[in-house]
This record gives sequence, C-alpha cells and structure tokens, in this order.
Amino acid sequence: METKVYGKPMYVAGRWVEKEAVIEVKNPQDGSFIAHVPAATENDVLMTIKEAESGAKTAASMPVHVRMAVLHKAADYIEKHRDTFATTIALEGSKTIREANGEVTRCIQTLRLSAEEARRIKGETIPFDQTESGENRIGYYTKFPIGLIAAITPFNDPLNLVAHKVGPAIASGNAIIVKPATATPLSALLLAEAFDNAGLPPKVLSVITGNGRIIGDLLVSHPAIRMVSFTGGLETGEEIAKKAGLKKLSMELGSNSPVIVMKDADMNEAVECTVAGAFSAAGQNCLGVQRIYIEQEVFEQFTTQFVQRTRQYNVGDKLSASTDMGPLISEKEAIRVESWVQEAVLEGAELLVGGVRTGAFYSPTVLVNVPMHCTIAQQEIFGPVVLLYPVNRLEMAIELANNVNYGLQAGIFTANIENAFKAIQGLEVGGILINDSSDFRIDGMPFGGVKGSGLGREGVKFAIEEMTETKVVSFKLGSLKG
Amino acid sequence: METKVYGKPMYVAGRWVEKEAVIEVKNPQDGSFIAHVPAATENDVLMTIKEAESGAKTAASMPVHVRMAVLHKAADYIEKHRDTFATTIALEGSKTIREANGEVTRCIQTLRLSAEEARRIKGETIPFDQTESGENRIGYYTKFPIGLIAAITPFNDPLNLVAHKVGPAIASGNAIIVKPATATPLSALLLAEAFDNAGLPPKVLSVITGNGRIIGDLLVSHPAIRMVSFTGGLETGEEIAKKAGLKKLSMELGSNSPVIVMKDADMNEAVECTVAGAFSAAGQNCLGVQRIYIEQEVFEQFTTQFVQRTRQYNVGDKLSASTDMGPLISEKEAIRVESWVQEAVLEGAELLVGGVRTGAFYSPTVLVNVPMHCTIAQQEIFGPVVLLYPVNRLEMAIELANNVNYGLQAGIFTANIENAFKAIQGLEVGGILINDSSDFRIDGMPFGGVKGSGLGREGVKFAIEEMTETKVVSFKLGSLKG
Amino acid sequence: METKVYGKPMYVAGRWVEKEAVIEVKNPQDGSFIAHVPAATENDVLMTIKEAESGAKTAASMPVHVRMAVLHKAADYIEKHRDTFATTIALEGSKTIREANGEVTRCIQTLRLSAEEARRIKGETIPFDQTESGENRIGYYTKFPIGLIAAITPFNDPLNLVAHKVGPAIASGNAIIVKPATATPLSALLLAEAFDNAGLPPKVLSVITGNGRIIGDLLVSHPAIRMVSFTGGLETGEEIAKKAGLKKLSMELGSNSPVIVMKDADMNEAVECTVAGAFSAAGQNCLGVQRIYIEQEVFEQFTTQFVQRTRQYNVGDKLSASTDMGPLISEKEAIRVESWVQEAVLEGAELLVGGVRTGAFYSPTVLVNVPMHCTIAQQEIFGPVVLLYPVNRLEMAIELANNVNYGLQAGIFTANIENAFKAIQGLEVGGILINDSSDFRIDGMPFGGVKGSGLGREGVKFAIEEMTETKVVSFKLGSLKG
Amino acid sequence: METKVYGKPMYVAGRWVEKEAVIEVKNPQDGSFIAHVPAATENDVLMTIKEAESGAKTAASMPVHVRMAVLHKAADYIEKHRDTFATTIALEGSKTIREANGEVTRCIQTLRLSAEEARRIKGETIPFDQTESGENRIGYYTKFPIGLIAAITPFNDPLNLVAHKVGPAIASGNAIIVKPATATPLSALLLAEAFDNAGLPPKVLSVITGNGRIIGDLLVSHPAIRMVSFTGGLETGEEIAKKAGLKKLSMELGSNSPVIVMKDADMNEAVECTVAGAFSAAGQNCLGVQRIYIEQEVFEQFTTQFVQRTRQYNVGDKLSASTDMGPLISEKEAIRVESWVQEAVLEGAELLVGGVRTGAFYSPTVLVNVPMHCTIAQQEIFGPVVLLYPVNRLEMAIELANNVNYGLQAGIFTANIENAFKAIQGLEVGGILINDSSDFRIDGMPFGGVKGSGLGREGVKFAIEEMTETKVVSFKLGSLKG
Repeated sequence: METKVYGKPMYVAGRWVEKEAVIEVKNPQDGSFIAHVPAATENDVLMTIKEAESGAKTAASMPVHVRMAVLHKAADYIEKHRDTFATTIALEGSKTIREANGEVTRCIQTLRLSAEEARRIKGETIPFDQTESGENRIGYYTKFPIGLIAAITPFNDPLNLVAHKVGPAIASGNAIIVKPATATPLSALLLAEAFDNAGLPPKVLSVITGNGRIIGDLLVSHPAIRMVSFTGGLETGEEIAKKAGLKKLSMELGSNSPVIVMKDADMNEAVECTVAGAFSAAGQNCLGVQRIYIEQEVFEQFTTQFVQRTRQYNVGDKLSASTDMGPLISEKEAIRVESWVQEAVLEGAELLVGGVRTGAFYSPTVLVNVPMHCTIAQQEIFGPVVLLYPVNRLEMAIELANNVNYGLQAGIFTANIENAFKAIQGLEVGGILINDSSDFRIDGMPFGGVKGSGLGREGVKFAIEEMTETKVVSFKLGSLKG
Repeated sequence: METKVYGKPMYVAGRWVEKEAVIEVKNPQDGSFIAHVPAATENDVLMTIKEAESGAKTAASMPVHVRMAVLHKAADYIEKHRDTFATTIALEGSKTIREANGEVTRCIQTLRLSAEEARRIKGETIPFDQTESGENRIGYYTKFPIGLIAAITPFNDPLNLVAHKVGPAIASGNAIIVKPATATPLSALLLAEAFDNAGLPPKVLSVITGNGRIIGDLLVSHPAIRMVSFTGGLETGEEIAKKAGLKKLSMELGSNSPVIVMKDADMNEAVECTVAGAFSAAGQNCLGVQRIYIEQEVFEQFTTQFVQRTRQYNVGDKLSASTDMGPLISEKEAIRVESWVQEAVLEGAELLVGGVRTGAFYSPTVLVNVPMHCTIAQQEIFGPVVLLYPVNRLEMAIELANNVNYGLQAGIFTANIENAFKAIQGLEVGGILINDSSDFRIDGMPFGGVKGSGLGREGVKFAIEEMTETKVVSFKLGSLKG
Repeated sequence: METKVYGKPMYVAGRWVEKEAVIEVKNPQDGSFIAHVPAATENDVLMTIKEAESGAKTAASMPVHVRMAVLHKAADYIEKHRDTFATTIALEGSKTIREANGEVTRCIQTLRLSAEEARRIKGETIPFDQTESGENRIGYYTKFPIGLIAAITPFNDPLNLVAHKVGPAIASGNAIIVKPATATPLSALLLAEAFDNAGLPPKVLSVITGNGRIIGDLLVSHPAIRMVSFTGGLETGEEIAKKAGLKKLSMELGSNSPVIVMKDADMNEAVECTVAGAFSAAGQNCLGVQRIYIEQEVFEQFTTQFVQRTRQYNVGDKLSASTDMGPLISEKEAIRVESWVQEAVLEGAELLVGGVRTGAFYSPTVLVNVPMHCTIAQQEIFGPVVLLYPVNRLEMAIELANNVNYGLQAGIFTANIENAFKAIQGLEVGGILINDSSDFRIDGMPFGGVKGSGLGREGVKFAIEEMTETKVVSFKLGSLKG
Repeated sequence: METKVYGKPMYVAGRWVEKEAVIEVKNPQDGSFIAHVPAATENDVLMTIKEAESGAKTAASMPVHVRMAVLHKAADYIEKHRDTFATTIALEGSKTIREANGEVTRCIQTLRLSAEEARRIKGETIPFDQTESGENRIGYYTKFPIGLIAAITPFNDPLNLVAHKVGPAIASGNAIIVKPATATPLSALLLAEAFDNAGLPPKVLSVITGNGRIIGDLLVSHPAIRMVSFTGGLETGEEIAKKAGLKKLSMELGSNSPVIVMKDADMNEAVECTVAGAFSAAGQNCLGVQRIYIEQEVFEQFTTQFVQRTRQYNVGDKLSASTDMGPLISEKEAIRVESWVQEAVLEGAELLVGGVRTGAFYSPTVLVNVPMHCTIAQQEIFGPVVLLYPVNRLEMAIELANNVNYGLQAGIFTANIENAFKAIQGLEVGGILINDSSDFRIDGMPFGGVKGSGLGREGVKFAIEEMTETKVVSFKLGSLKG
C-alpha cells in the first residue's frame, strides 16, 4: 500500500525550491496530513536575503504601470482559482469554508487596492521661500521605496494578512520576504504562485517556510532588512522590537477588544453583532470581541439573548457550508483556552454556556463575574470566549475597557450622540465602531492599535506610507532672483 | 458757524486719493453724518485696474515670507488700533459695539490664518509612469496666483468679510481691488490703512468707493480681472455671473437658514442658540436663523421659551455695551422687513412678538403659521425676524428646510445619532451644525452654500484654492531609461 | 436599388429614443454617409432634464462600490468591443485608425481611473477648537455630488473627452446629460451603450443629439443644471459663460501652444516630438504645437530637419494602419485653415512646406516669418499648420509665447536647469513640458489652461473636485467640556 | 574669600529643582566654568515620568487654541531675550555668536511653525461604502496624541534641535521629557524657562539634566514612554533601538554628507557653498559636507579655490562677531578628529591645509587621496575636515557617495537637467540639494535620513505625524439604508 505524499516547495527569489528537511502541515480539525513544506535553513535565509537585495533594486525600477499590471494579474489569478484558495485556507487554518471564501474576496480587493494606490504615491511641493534663507529655491519631496522588507504573518488570516504586506510592498517598489505562520504556509505559497503567474520579476518576492525561531530571528536582525512588518502576538512583537535594531517596524499585535452596550441601544442588533464578533474564526481574530460592558439596566436582557444566540452557533466541519465555527488552530491552543477559562472559573467566574473542549474544538463560551486579575481578563484569549460585565455608567465602562495593555479596536452600541463621542474621545484604541462590533474592518481604512496592540498602521495606503521613505529635492536657482 | 467735514480718501494702488464727488456715510441709527468718501468715476476704475495689473506681477513675485510678514504686520496694526476699528464698524454698520469687537478679533485671526496658509500653498508630485506613455518623466503640479481679483463686499461684516478676500489674495500672490458696500466703506478703508502701514507694495491692493452700479459693473466685466469674489445678495450675484464672462467666480450669497429642533433636544440650549442666531447683527447675517422646524410635541414649549427670551432682547444704542441689537443698515431696509412681515400677517401668519419699526430699528420678531407662498417664507429676510413651524417627523422637517432656493448652513438640535445623520445626509446645504445654530462659523473652515446660496467656498485655505491656478510640470528624462 | 440606412437612436434617461427629424453623420474623408442620429427638440431636452433631475437623486444614493462596479464594467465592455469603438472614432472623426485605437485605450483608462477615484472622494476632519468659539465641537467636511451636470463635448476626441466628463460625474454620484459634437455623435452614443450594458441605473446618463444651438443653449441656461462642463472653442465658451448664470463652469477651451527650442537641446528629439505634436489628429488638438520659438543659432538646422520630417508625413486614408494623418473634420474647416494660411502668406509669411488642400484634407504645413498681427499668429489654427520663429534669448521666447490670449500647455527643449525653471516660472500656461511637446498628457494629471484657454481643471481626480460640493459637519458636545 | 557659583536648576514637571550632586558646564573654548546643573538620579527620572504621565492627560485635553497661544508666547519670550539665548548657545556650545544668533532665529520659527501646525492636525473622512460590507457607515479617522515622549538631544544645536521635539510635542497634545546633551544643558533649560513663562501647564514639559547613561537608559526603556525621539550618533541610536522595545522611534543620526561637483557647475558658487557647508559649527553638523566628488576636469581648479577659501576662514573667539569658526565641543573631541586625520595621512592621504589642533580648536582641514578604508572615509567626522575626490563620471560619483552606511542629505552642483535627476534618483539619502551644499535646511521641510542616518522624519509637520496615532471612527446607521 502506498501513501501519496503531497509536497509544496517554497518560493525563493522566483524559484520553487524543495528541501529534504520538511515541516508537515496538518488539518487542525482532525490532525490529518495536508502537505509538507520545506524547512529552510539559516543558509537558505541568508541566500534569500542576498537575492532579495538585488530584487529590491529591480522592484524600485519597475515603472508604476508595470507594478499595477502585476498586482491586477495576481488578483485575476486568485479570482480564477478562487476555490483552490478558499479550500486551502479552510483546510490548513481554522476558518470555515464560508469564512475562507470571504477572505479570498478580501485578498483580491487588497491586491487591487494596492494596484490603485501604486499610482497615488505622492509627495508635495515645498514653498522654500517661506523663510528668507530658502529664497530662490524650488522643490518638493517624494516617496521612494524603503528597500527590503521582512514580513512575518499569522495563521488566522493566512492569505489576506499576507496580501496586506505583499500588495503594498510591491505597489511601492520594494522587495519582500515572507515567513508565513508555521501552521498555515500553504495559503501564502498560493499567493506567491499568483504573483509568479502574474509575471512579477524574480527576487522581488520570496515566501520561505520553516521553523520560526530560526528564520524569524535571522530575518528581523539582518542589517539588509530595512523594515520588519509583523502581525502576531505581543510577546513575539516585543522580542522582535529588541532584536531588530535600527529598522522601521510595523507591528500589528493582539487585543482583547471591548464593546460597550448602553441601555438605549438596539438590543437585537447589539447581540447579533457581538456574538458574530466574538466567535468568528473561532475567536482567533485580533479584532474579536472579548469583553462586553453592558449598562446595568439591560445586563440581564442582553446576557439572556446573547447566551441564547450563542447556543444556536453551529460548530463542526470547516468544509461544510452550514458550519458557523470550526476548531482552533491546534489542540494545544484549545487546551490553553480551556485552561484560561478554568482559571477564571476557579477564581469565581460563572460559565453561562460553552466551556467544552473536543480535540482542537472549543465550544463558544460566555463568562460572567470574571475577576479582573484573571489571565483571561487581561490577556488576549484568541479563542471563542467572551466576558460580560455590567456597568453603572458609560464613564466606568470606558475606564474598564482601557484598563488593559491592549488597544486595537472597540465598539459601542448606543443611540445617543454624547455617549458616542465620549467613547470616541475616551477609549484608548486605534478604531471605534459606533453600533458595530469591534471586528469591523474594510481593507482600505487605516488599521492598527495603540499600547500593546502595535506600532504603525496597515490598510493599503497606510502600509505604503510606512514602506516608503521621504526624499526632499531642492533646486537652487539664479534665475528666480531677478 | 462752521461744520467740520470729515473725509476719508480711497486707496488706489498705494495712494490715498480724494475726489470732488463724494458719497456720504451715515450712521443708520440716527442718520447722522460720519464721513464722506470719494465717488470713483469709470475712469478711476480703469486706471485702478491698469495699476493693479502691474500690481499682480509684484504680488506674484513677493517671496512667501514677505507676504507672511505683511499679513502679520497688518494684523498687528489692527490689534494696536482695535478700538478705532470696532468703533468704525459699529458707527457705519448696524452692529453693536460688542458685535463689532468680535468682528475685529475675527479679522485679526483671518489675516494671521492667511499668513499661515501662504506657506502651505502646495502641489503634489505626479507619478507619470502610471501609464506607459508617461515613462521617463518626473514632475509635479504647483499652484500659482490667478492674477487680478475684484472683490465686492457687503455691509454686514464690513471688515472681516473684506479680510476674507484680501487676506487670501495677498497670501496667494494676487492683486485685488475691493469695492466695499456703499453704506460701509470706512472699515474697508481702515483695512487698507493697515496694509499700507504694514508695507504692502503699492498696486497690490486698492479699495475704491462709490456707486456700485458704475464701479461694480466695470470691475466684474473687465477682461483684466481674472476672478470676481462677491459676497452679497442672490439677485446681484446672478447679474454678476452673467456679466463676468470667462472668469473664476466666488459667490457667497444669501440664505434663509433653517434649524430643526427635535423633541429629544436640550430645550434651553436650543432656545438660547437660536434666539442668538436669529437676532445677532439685527438678523443681517447670511447665516442667521430664519426658519425653525420644531417637533410637534415640543412646539408649544419651545415657542413659549423662544418668545420669552426674545422679549428680553435689549434693542438700542449700538455703542452701548449693554445693547443686544442695533438698527438695520437703513430705514429703507427696515421698511422692507416691515412690509414682508405685514404681507405674511395679511396672509394668515400670527405675530407672537415684535413687528414694531422705529426708523431703522425693527424689533425682534417671531412669526408662526406663515404660509409657504409668502415672500418671507421663501426669500432671505435679512432682518430680525424668525418663523417657527411645527413638524410631525424629521423627514418632513428636512423636506421643508430644503424647499427653498437657498442652502447655506443649517442646524439641528437632537440627542440622537440617527437623527443627526439623517439631517447631515438630507439637508441641502454647505454646512450642518448639530446642536448649534446655523450661524456657527470659524474662519478656518470651508464656508459657502449650494443652490442660490452661492458658488465656491471661502475660509482662508479654501479661498486660496479658488484664487490659484494649477500648473503641471514634467521633465522628460533620458537618464531614467535604465 | 435600395440603400440601407443606418440609424442610431439617442440615449435618454435609460431609453434608446428615435426621432423622425434626424441629422446625418458623414465621413469627412469622402463625405460618405455613416449613420443618422435623432435631432432632439427643445421639448426633448426639457424632458431629458426632468428625468435627469430624478437621476441625480439615484446617482447620489448609489453606494460607492456600485459606482465602481458600473465604471469597471463599462470599461470591460469597451475593451471587449475595442474594434467597434476605434473604427467608429476613425470613421466619423478625423483621426486615423492608429490614433483612434490610442483613444480607445485612453478611454478605458479614464473610466478605470474614475472608478478608483470614486472611493477616494474624501473630506478632512476640522480641529474646531483652534479658536475659543469652536471649543467642544468635533467635525469634518465631506464632498457631496453637485447634482445635475450638462456636458458639451468636441469632435476631436469624440470618445475620451466624453469619458472625461461622464466617468468623473458617475464616480462622484452625479447625473449627466451629454450633448456630443454634431459631427461625431456616434462615439458618445457607443459610450452610452457601454454604460447601459454595465447596469448604470436609467436617468443617470443621457446622450442627446441634434442641433447645438437649440440643445446647448437650453442645457446651459436651465436652472436645474448645476454645472456646465464644456470642451470646445473660446468663443462658444464665452457665450456659455454669459448664458449659464449661477452655475459651476468647467471650461476646457482652445490654445495655440508654444514650444521653445534652445540651442543646447537634443535637436533630433526636439524635431521628432514637435512634428508629432503639430500634426497629430491633423492638428485638431487643443494641445497641438502651433508656435515654435527656436534659438537663433539652431534655427536653420531645426527648420531644415523639421521640414524634412514633415515631408515624410503620410497623409491618406484614415483606416489604413500606415497613415500618419487624415482629413480635417470637414471641408469647411479645411477651407478656413487654408484661408488663414493664405492671409499669412499675403502678409509676408513664407510657406516652407504644405499649404495644399484637397477636399477636407490639408497637407502638413510649416510657415516662417508670420507677422504677429495675422490671425494664424494669434488665434487657434486647429489644423496641421505650425509657425517657426527664431529668437535671440529665452526671455524673448517666453514673452512671445505669452503674447496671446491662450495658455493651455507649452514645451521647452533644453539641457539646462536654469532655462527649464525660467520657462516654468515665466510661461503663462496650465502645463509645462520640459523636453516634450506641448501635447503630452496622461489622463490622471490635472489638465486645463489659463487666460482664454479655460476655467477649472479636468483629469479625473480634478474633475471630481469640480463636480462635488463641500459640506461641513459639526457636532457640539457637552461631553467634551469636562 | 568667596566664589560665587552659578547654578541652574532643572525643570521637572513645572518645578525648578536643584540637587546636591551637580554637573559642571564649561566653555569648550577655554575650559572656563559657566554653571552647574543638577545630576538627576534614577529616582528623579522615575518621579519625572510619573508626573509626566499625568501631564500627558493634561496636554491632550488642552484645546488647540491654548496650545497655539502657549507656543507663540514662548516664541515671544525668546524674541524678547534673544541675546541671553544666543550668548548661552555660544558659551556652552561650540558655535560662534553669529551662528548662535541664527539658531535663536530658527528656534523662534520652529515654535511658531509648531503653533501653526497644531491647528492643521487632521484626519480624513472614509468612504466606507467602497465595499459592500461597509455600506451604511459614515466615518473618518483623526490623529490623537501618542502620549509621553522622551527626547534626547545633542550639543550641536542645543536650542533649536530641542525645539524641534518640544514644539511639535506640545502642538500635538503630548507630554515630553527632555534629556539635553550633558555638555550643553543650559540652552534647553532656557527653552523650559520660555515655556514656563508662557503658561504651559506643569507636567507637560520636563528638562532633566545629568549623566546620560543613567537618565537616558531609564527613559528609553521605561514602559510609560510611548515614543523616543533621539538626535545623536549612530552607535547610541542603535543601542536605544534595542533597549526601547515596543515604542515609536524617531532617530535623527549622523552622516558624512557627500557633495558632487560637475564640470558644468558654477565653480565659485560651488566652492563658496561647500566651504561653508564643511566648516560651519566647526563641522559639528549632521548635515555638514564631509566628502566632495569633483569631476576630473575641474578637480584641480576646484581644489585650489577650495583651499584658498579655507585659508581665509577666521578661527577664534566664539563671542567675536568676526569669527567664522570656534572650537569643537571638547578637547577630547578635537583629539579624536586629530587622530582620524593622522590615521588617514599615515595611510597615504595628503593634507592640503589645516590639521592643526590647539586645545579644543582644530583648524579647517582639507584632505585628498584618502583611502576608502580609513575611518574618516567611512564614519562621520563631526569636525572641520573635508575630503576631496576626483571622479570620471557622475555615475561613479553617485556610487562612491552611496558607498557608506549613512544617507542624510547630499548636494550636487551642475547646470544640467539630466545630471540633476540622475543624482536625485541615484543618491541614497533623505534630501538632495541641487546647486546647494548638503547642509541646506528649512525648519518646515521633512528632514531625516536613510540607512544609518536614521528612522522617521522631523520638520514640524512631519514630527507631528510621528507623534500622533490614528483613530478610526465609524458610525453604522440604519437611517442610510432607505
């Protein structure tokens, strides 16, 4: 009897490279083998960087219309192979096929947006004669590519979060080396395939797979890398910051996003949005709703409806169109989530629904009375668990919402103008959604957090700003004197 | 017995010019003589234009830091002579001394803002290689002065509305000829004095006085004038538009601004703001509240409070610090207002308070039940009269508010988010103030209306946009070919 | 024997409408009949406006992603039927098939750019607390559609110059009524077909054909029209300005563009570019090179090369791929060009090459020694005629270049920085091309002129700015006080 | 007998604090004592941070007009005490009194620019309906203060480089703690005095003095500090980057700026500008000219003129108005410069002029034939030494100019357009000055470098961008649905 082993090579500077040492990619749902990918060595990384350095020159000299054409062609390729992309996301990751399809749509959008932004990378003219010393000068500043970028990407949006780094990098004339999450390299490799087919010059893009510790450390600390764009956990983010040295850092880290529900809110809408916001992608979403602060008068009503709606959540096979929620990315992760919930319960929290683990699956879970000092009340759960708290006043909700080391996005449900603006002014976050869950995002808006949630902003135009340097040009002229 | 006659010369291309033929400036409060100013002839206008054409070249070649210095020095001069400026406004116009003082403060701000914006007149670099045909080109666009501007200004803000044209014109390197309102030329001439003292090169600014029909027509139709910036009535605006021909037009015309009061609003705040908004400057304010649509449930309460507050309004001597409201700009105008009110009453309107004319004074007046076809329900009253209407729903209020040929600014008082944004979306105006009267404005915001309320926007930065032309520059280079 | 008559209906508010009265469209090359189109009556225009008023509401309420989808689909349609579009342009207009193909490519680009700009129509937040009176306010300004636009378009780019008005109008949520040039309505109707197929809601776009005097006058003076966007001659532009009244005007008028050639220039490049710039589209291009000022030392060399290159110009059948230049738009026009050349020759000009008319064809013509007072030295020739002048110094070239009532674009050929910036500063035009002919343009750059060359700017983003109004929003808040 | 010791307290959160332990500030010219300043302890730093955390809240809640007033008042204070400021700079630093006066003027400008930019901190509205998922949402993003900033500033511009951090910090609503250079704390403390007098609320600004190792390390690594703004050497910059962790970094580091002189350049102008650029502030200027690449044909001529001009340089007493150049900041530094020059000479370099050290003074020095591997050819000399190299072609000059680990600004002298743009495209720097020395700067332009020269940009507006975070606001509305 034979087993056909499927191996996917990695993409190094325009070549598809296999290695003897490999890493297995498994379906978290049942542990079944999907494919293996190369385990790159330190030497592989160094060679990739060397090639990418020359790729950066190629990238910078691509006329904008060529960059645009490549990005649109890559998007066309994904559109044409949409099913392959969606299935791969759903297989290797923990998204359901419905969620995976949504991600493919957004990835296409991200690449097209990148193409559009490519021709809008602009500087401004400078009126130098605003000071006496600047008379007789005419000039401007422009934006030019930063050079070589290292991208380290997470498992939870294994395609679109890669596109959010690769798209802007190519649009702005940079070379980029991607190290995708060890658990989900296949979607990133598919993206490389799309660019390969789109005619991207070799060496501009590489996707290298393998052990994060080895690859990641080398990438982030190498002097040829001018910028590290990382999406992932706070702890790793802090380590990278220390290792990177004098580099531009873009850090999209985690959060435990709060949502506030005022008594004047549309309760059905609030419940519907926050349930979805808490459990989509099995809660493995940096924007996912983790803490809900509900005005006392409606706490019971909201809680009842919320639990009821949670019970209807359909957990099961990721590839089934009727599934609402799949497994976590690994059993290990499910066990961690379980343990955080158990810690909270031991400390006095009350479990209203959920709390059941089956392998990598963890049922949608609602907690109340969670003490502030519990891990789950402070850290990012990154699982399908949500904490409900009653509050007396909006001011108190805002204070509690701020009382953590994260600040990505937040939501508030209210009909009242003053409430809305109090939240807008008071919440220490990068985005505030009025009458929306914290996980609303469009790919063209600035995206990122404050405090432990990160540094810099993504969202194509904003990522491009981070990926470019400013160059001032001044012409001193005799001819303007007279 | 002798009478000492005070004559103020006009400011032509850096010279203070007297003429035998003069126009008398009188205090509308009592008809007392203040000063006479020259009555410029057609020939004067033509000569002024000729000089200003060369002034436009001078203006364009002033380095930005020199423009800034002149604007700041003019502002300093006004600060130093603040009392003279305020008293002049209060004497020749219909503002109280308190209102006049406020206008002086804003004028200083307008000039300083103009200085600041002077160094922020910027173009953008253009990525020409966004198309194949544009490869090997580098360039940008900049903004350069439009040339010679004619400004025609109204009596109601005789200083600051002139500054809103002169400040941006000088900041952006243009020459400008001002024809101030016949009733209030002295404030504009004082502004010229400030610039004269500030070292503005001659010929950049002229303020010519005289008969509007003669001066205005010649100015707006003369081919050397590249832009007409007019603030005044709709009818005159339309005439100018037809006469001007191929010129840039900036038209700040009138309005009969609506305010909506919803039952969930803070009623005291709504009354306080709308009373002030209706009667400030004796209602002679293009932003003044003319129509208030009040939700049925609170109509009686609002009306009672509004009338009560109106009765407290102190009408009297403009120069007294305790006066809330002075006369209209002329007895003729007061008679016109009186006749519009009488027409409405004859058609069925009910007069709740006011309706009394004494010379140029007209008491603060509140009407209800004014039929839609009345002049006062359609046209701009430009006097201290306000119309209150009950409405059943917000949608109806919006429809009624839109049902005129004006659209400058509007207000709505409400605590509710959905109401606020319905108004923002639905009201056909240039500015919407939530929980404010329609007459809120800061000098740095874009200002102007739609429909019969005008064309283009003022507010220093926005006026400068209108006063400048775009110039594209492209360098085709062999050296970029590779 | 029968003749099959081909009739193309006009596009009124989503319906394809035929009329009994028709206008014949003929091939200017041989006068052969191509098709007839309806001759709209005044009543047709009024009904079209009425429908378009409701179309404006529809347009404004289309979500941006729907506008984008429609624009991209229309571009797709044109790409798919590229040959039909190109042949139509070449048949009804005076472009060669090669030039027509280029125009189709640019039209597609214009529509895609419009789609891209649709999602970039942005306002800015306003820091109201920059003055004491603005404390406790939060707000912003946005751009909203101006409403209903009338577009009057010329024959020389019968597709892309229509797209430059229709694309931005739809992108920014406006309705638009197009009156195409009487000679070339078919390309505009094809564009309507593209939008019809793309699912544009009815009433947003109309293309009405017929007598310009009737349709045009009614359109530009009708009060429901908020903006007139005209591309055409100066004289008509001035008439429109007077008739339009209080409307936003966008005027892209003509020019007689100058190019300066300095002795340090690359002479081959200069000749190649200016010959193409003078004779493309048979000189019927508002950007076409009409006057060349050549530094004395190289005047003879340049002239010799220029004439030599002109002689190689292949004039002939528009539909042949090897043709460089076709006929003028009509024999009448060719006769006018001929008469202007004859006038110049009578006044002392010397004809170096060309000057031969055959029906609507006029051979590429080079003149020297043309006295300044000749019509052809002052007015826009809009035909394949170019005037060469020697100059002693750059300053003289600039002065002569400026000495007309036009100012669209200009070119200068030089290797020297000081020369380049002297030209940039000194030439009174909307665009300066260093080492390029005056007729360089990409569809995304700001485009338009000064003096008699127009008002406002096109180029998708810039057209959208003209087609939108600014709306200020301010929330006054109690909650910010504390 | 008594000695009167002059002690200047440090400025901690609004209080002027003395400490027993002090650091002496000496005049580098003669080692004479100027004053002592406190040597802050770790505990002092921690307490300052604690106060500044609450200061950050105060700063953020200051209305913009109050921030502006404070900044203008501080500028007024400096204008009024201009002599004290200039003398202090000249005494404690190594600038001549003429240079010091120039710095005071620029500092005033920097603060006024900061005030102006305060009211221009703007976000943009976001068209959320650009995707289907964003329909029915209205919103925008704004910029809010990052919080608490630590600034570490250098000795060479002891006033204005502090103002470049303090001004933007206050303008954008942040609190800031400044650690000035140990050698030159007095100018920074004078700036604190200006703000103290201007009514800046306590705790918003602190200037703490003492040992850099202790204070600096604590500041940059403390978690309450959200941003480190450092101007200084590359080595220290790299250390800070590693210690800071997850913080925004603004790094203005050193350079060894290149200037290219082509044979077509104006030789007198080139010599005059580069001599000044090399020796101003005794070469202690991050923008100072260190390497000049001269086209072979003019190398001898340029060198001769350069040496001749250098010999005329007047080195002497800083406080004398006729002095061109004073001492280095310390004898230790002068010895370092001396040793780098000696190393080069030992390796084969030729000394054309200079090379003489007297205490902290080092004479203006010109070297040729310096081998590439010498320290002085690679590192930043930060002293009055310049290296001249002949080159065959521009391309070679660009390659050599790029061949170091710095990239701040660069100059090129040429009359030729192609040369200029080759340099603009090819030089890896943050600013390129055509026909200017590398040290041209105006305070309002973006300023900063690539490679080892730094991260981020200063120049008031650009510093503010770095000092603010983006916050997205979205209102989901039912009312837009219908």
